[in-house]
Amino acid sequence: MVFTPSKLLLTVDLAGTLLFAIEGALAAVAANLDLFGVMVLAFATALVGGIIRDVLIGAVPPASLRDWRYPAAAFAGGAIVFFLHPLIRQVPASVIITLDAAALALFAVAGTEKALVYKMHPLVAALLGTITGVGGGTVRDVLLAQVPAVLRADIYASAALAGAIVMIVATKLRLPPTLAAILGGFVCFSLRVISVWQHWSLPQAVGS
Amino acid sequence: MVFTPSKLLLTVDLAGTLLFAIEGALAAVAANLDLFGVMVLAFATALVGGIIRDVLIGAVPPASLRDWRYPAAAFAGGAIVFFLHPLIRQVPASVIITLDAAALALFAVAGTEKALVYKMHPLVAALLGTITGVGGGTVRDVLLAQVPAVLRADIYASAALAGAIVMIVATKLRLPPTLAAILGGFVCFSLRVISVWQHWSLPQAVGS
Amino acid sequence: MVFTPSKLLLTVDLAGTLLFAIEGALAAVAANLDLFGVMVLAFATALVGGIIRDVLIGAVPPASLRDWRYPAAAFAGGAIVFFLHPLIRQVPASVIITLDAAALALFAVAGTEKALVYKMHPLVAALLGTITGVGGGTVRDVLLAQVPAVLRADIYASAALAGAIVMIVATKLRLPPTLAAILGGFVCFSLRVISVWQHWSLPQAVGS
Repeated sequence: MVFTPSKLLLTVDLAGTLLFAIEGALAAVAANLDLFGVMVLAFATALVGGIIRDVLIGAVPPASLRDWRYPAAAFAGGAIVFFLHPLIRQVPASVIITLDAAALALFAVAGTEKALVYKMHPLVAALLGTITGVGGGTVRDVLLAQVPAVLRADIYASAALAGAIVMIVATKLRLPPTLAAILGGFVCFSLRVISVWQHWSLPQAVGS
Repeated sequence: MVFTPSKLLLTVDLAGTLLFAIEGALAAVAANLDLFGVMVLAFATALVGGIIRDVLIGAVPPASLRDWRYPAAAFAGGAIVFFLHPLIRQVPASVIITLDAAALALFAVAGTEKALVYKMHPLVAALLGTITGVGGGTVRDVLLAQVPAVLRADIYASAALAGAIVMIVATKLRLPPTLAAILGGFVCFSLRVISVWQHWSLPQAVGS
Repeated sequence: MVFTPSKLLLTVDLAGTLLFAIEGALAAVAANLDLFGVMVLAFATALVGGIIRDVLIGAVPPASLRDWRYPAAAFAGGAIVFFLHPLIRQVPASVIITLDAAALALFAVAGTEKALVYKMHPLVAALLGTITGVGGGTVRDVLLAQVPAVLRADIYASAALAGAIVMIVATKLRLPPTLAAILGGFVCFSLRVISVWQHWSLPQAVGS
């Protein structure tokens, strides 16, 4: 059982990989890591979420290690930041947040779909879609010896989870797969962008 | 080769999962994480030990992702803490330590047995049983950017290891599997409870 | 497809495992961990790099869990440090750095070769060889709640990567496998030793 995205999907997927890699590399530069550290954080942020998903569903070697274009896109993101980061830092935060939300939606939806293809239970598929979206950023923060940002009060992982759930419900309602994916991605993207714009956050525990 | 615990074992296993999840969620609340962070730490503490074991022995997808009741139990533990943690915090420490020791014994014994079923070397099976018991708590601490508690001076992981070893020796002596499991679990549980009660700890290196 | 190193290779491999374990255990003692913590860091530093590689290429159970001599060598390293670390600390730094460079070269070359045997793309094989060499030390540092040393400015992981690339190029040029491995190992070892001696380091990002 091979998972072969179409050419359009591949292009979009590589663009998301490049973007996540750029964000990981920016965090590495901010932490004064060297060239190797920048490349590792670019790679980890962009690809580790999907690698964890593939290891857990038994799809090894993971897709991003079977197709050299994924690591190449990740390292390209690292190199762009390494040489051009004074330029990259001038990109307005709103642009980065919007692009990041798009990449998050893409990764969450693609991860959920792949988990469904591998016959995972819908609840588990939603979890694996979320891990695909936020796993890389979590590992990036662990490597920087920080509590992962996704665990703090912010609508990020929960946007990915909401998108994954919407996609699964739409699939169960027998909507066409493409429509289900678009709906899920739209929910994740909108929720993320609106939450930043409106300063929404998740509640903390009662009485804490 | 499928690992199908009986109904009683499943119930006990889910109870252990719920308890570990509650402990992980309490750590998340103490660290001011949001709802999503509480759920992630509940899930990680309860299930990641077994997931690591299953990935290493080649039993993918891991048992806790093939049966939706395991993530459901973990998230139930997270929700209980999220909404009721002022109540939960009034549970006496001695009760929590005793229940935790029981869950540790259960996980260590079940993990060792599964590794033996998958034909691992006894030394490796004991390691995998220990990882099943303490892996989740280790990942929880890493996510909180802390040195894992199990690596510090305390009889916790070593109780799990002792239980695993007793179980393996009993199996080699051809005792019935159920008896071997009960013996191993009893050693792990007693060692943990007595060590807390008597303030035992493991030695640090000579001359350090 | 089984990966069976010859007796000489096995001996060298176990020696490298022992050495990496000793280094991991020294870090654990310096962080005041207890006996169990020393053993975990010895095991993780020596074997986790190869375990990650094996999980990613689908070679589970990992080689170091299928052959009990690998964990035994790792725990022997932990025990040596635990009982004799005042002696071990008197070993001159230059000796440790030279032996460590040799172990790094060995692990990087062996990891690259195994990835090639499993038909990974050359770029990916070089990455997996590097992970084999530095993955254990990275996990050690994460368990100590520190930013991994390999991500900071130093020629270490990059020496492993250079050795892996040289080995792959030599293989593509149809040199005999043994010669390719020796060339790659020699480049890794020399680069590491010379860089320490000459205080070389990798650049940080432009303008940071």
